[in-house]
Amino acid sequence: MVNKYEKLYEGKAKQIFRTDNEENVIVHYKDDATAFNGEKKAQIQNKGVLNNQITSMIFEMLNKNGIKTHFIEKLNDRDQLCKRVEIVPLEVIVRNVAAGSMAKRLGLEEGFKLKTTVFELSYKDDSLGDPLINDYHAVGIGATTFEELNSIYEMTAKINELLKEFFKKQNIDLIDFKIEFGRLPNGEVVLADEISPDTCRFWDSTTGEKLDKDRFRRDMGNVEEAYVEILKRIQG
Amino acid sequence: MVNKYEKLYEGKAKQIFRTDNEENVIVHYKDDATAFNGEKKAQIQNKGVLNNQITSMIFEMLNKNGIKTHFIEKLNDRDQLCKRVEIVPLEVIVRNVAAGSMAKRLGLEEGFKLKTTVFELSYKDDSLGDPLINDYHAVGIGATTFEELNSIYEMTAKINELLKEFFKKQNIDLIDFKIEFGRLPNGEVVLADEISPDTCRFWDSTTGEKLDKDRFRRDMGNVEEAYVEILKRIQG
Repeated sequence: MVNKYEKLYEGKAKQIFRTDNEENVIVHYKDDATAFNGEKKAQIQNKGVLNNQITSMIFEMLNKNGIKTHFIEKLNDRDQLCKRVEIVPLEVIVRNVAAGSMAKRLGLEEGFKLKTTVFELSYKDDSLGDPLINDYHAVGIGATTFEELNSIYEMTAKINELLKEFFKKQNIDLIDFKIEFGRLPNGEVVLADEISPDTCRFWDSTTGEKLDKDRFRRDMGNVEEAYVEILKRIQG
Repeated sequence: MVNKYEKLYEGKAKQIFRTDNEENVIVHYKDDATAFNGEKKAQIQNKGVLNNQITSMIFEMLNKNGIKTHFIEKLNDRDQLCKRVEIVPLEVIVRNVAAGSMAKRLGLEEGFKLKTTVFELSYKDDSLGDPLINDYHAVGIGATTFEELNSIYEMTAKINELLKEFFKKQNIDLIDFKIEFGRLPNGEVVLADEISPDTCRFWDSTTGEKLDKDRFRRDMGNVEEAYVEILKRIQG
C-alpha cells in the first residue's frame, strides 16, 4: 500500500504526487491530450488507463534489458510508482524514418528513409515552444553537460534498438519517439516520463496505418481505437 | 591577367564567373544587402568593395596560419580569384556570445555568456528558410557525412581561435560568425564564401558599439561607416 499525498506537479498528460517515501512519487495518467505546443486540447477517452498500461509494460521490458528507468511498479489503472527524479529539461527525439515536424522542417516526404538514425534535442520550455536545439546549445545554456549528454545518447541508442525490435514483433514500425531523462539524487541519469502512442509514431508494418497520436493531431478519427490496438498487440 | 567569362551563379551578395582555368572562378562582390531570408533588401554603398577588401585580408591571414581556403588573390576592387568548389549546403555558425536568432530562440539576453562555444548548422535552402539543423539531420538527408563534418568542425574551431585573436588586437569582440565550406575536385574540404561584417557580429570591445550588418537589419544607421571602421582597424 502506497499513500498518495499532495500534488507536486501537473503536466499536460500526467500529475505527480508525493508518497510516504521521499525517494518515490506516484505518476497519475490523465485523459487530457494536447498537440502543437498546447494549442489543440481535448480528452481522449481512457487514454490515461491505456498509456499507463502501455508505458508500464514497455518500462518493465526496458528494465529487464538493463536500461535504468524511474519506473518501479504499476499501482492501479492510472497510477505508477516511480523514483523521484529531477527532469533534465530536454526532449530527446529519435527518428528512424522522416515524419512530422522534421519532415516539414527539412522539406522531406513523410516516410523518407534517412541515411542515418536522427537524434534531436528540444529545450523543454513552453514559453519558447520547446525549440529544437543542438548539443552545444544544451550545454551553453546550462541545461546539461557534455558528459551527461553522452550517457543520454548512449542510453537512447540502446532504447531505440530495444523498442524497434519489441514493436517489430507486433508488426509495428517505430517511426520516431520522444523520451525524457531524470537525475536521481546521486546524479545518475535514468529514463523517465512515458513511452506510449502519445510520444511515439507507430505505423502498422503491413498497411502503414497510423496507430498513434497523429490520429488526434490530424483529426483522423479512431484515436482511442488506435491506442487500444497498440495495447492489444503488445499484450500478445 | 585573368579573363572573366560568363556568370555561373548569382547569390544575394556575390556573383561567380568562369575564367580561362576550369579550376578557378572569379568571385564578384555586389553592394546588395539582404536580411531575414531575403525579406529585407537594399544596397549599402561600397559594401562590395569593402567586403572584398576585408575578406581578402582575413583569408590571407587564415591561409598563412594553415587554414585551407578557396581564396587565391584579390584581382581588383570587387573581384577575387578563387578555387572553384562545390559548396557544402550548410551554414556553419559559431557563437562566442549569445546574440541574434539564437538569443531569441533560447530566450537569452543578447550578450549572455555561454558556458561553451556554440557551433550551429543551418541547411542552405531558401525555400525552407535555411532551417537550423543538427549533425544527424545533415547526414540523414545526405548533405554531408560524419567524416566530412569532423573536418569542418575541426577547421571551424581553429578559424574561430584565429579570428578572435585577430579582431581582439583591433579592440573588437567577435560575437558570432557564419562560414561556408566547399569541396575541391579531389573531395578535400576548404573554407569558402566570405568573412566580413555581412557574416560576423563585431562589437567594439570598449563601447559595445555594433560594427556589422545588424546596423542594417535593425535600421540603426551608419551602416557603411561601420564597414569602413572594420576595414580601417584591420588595416592597422
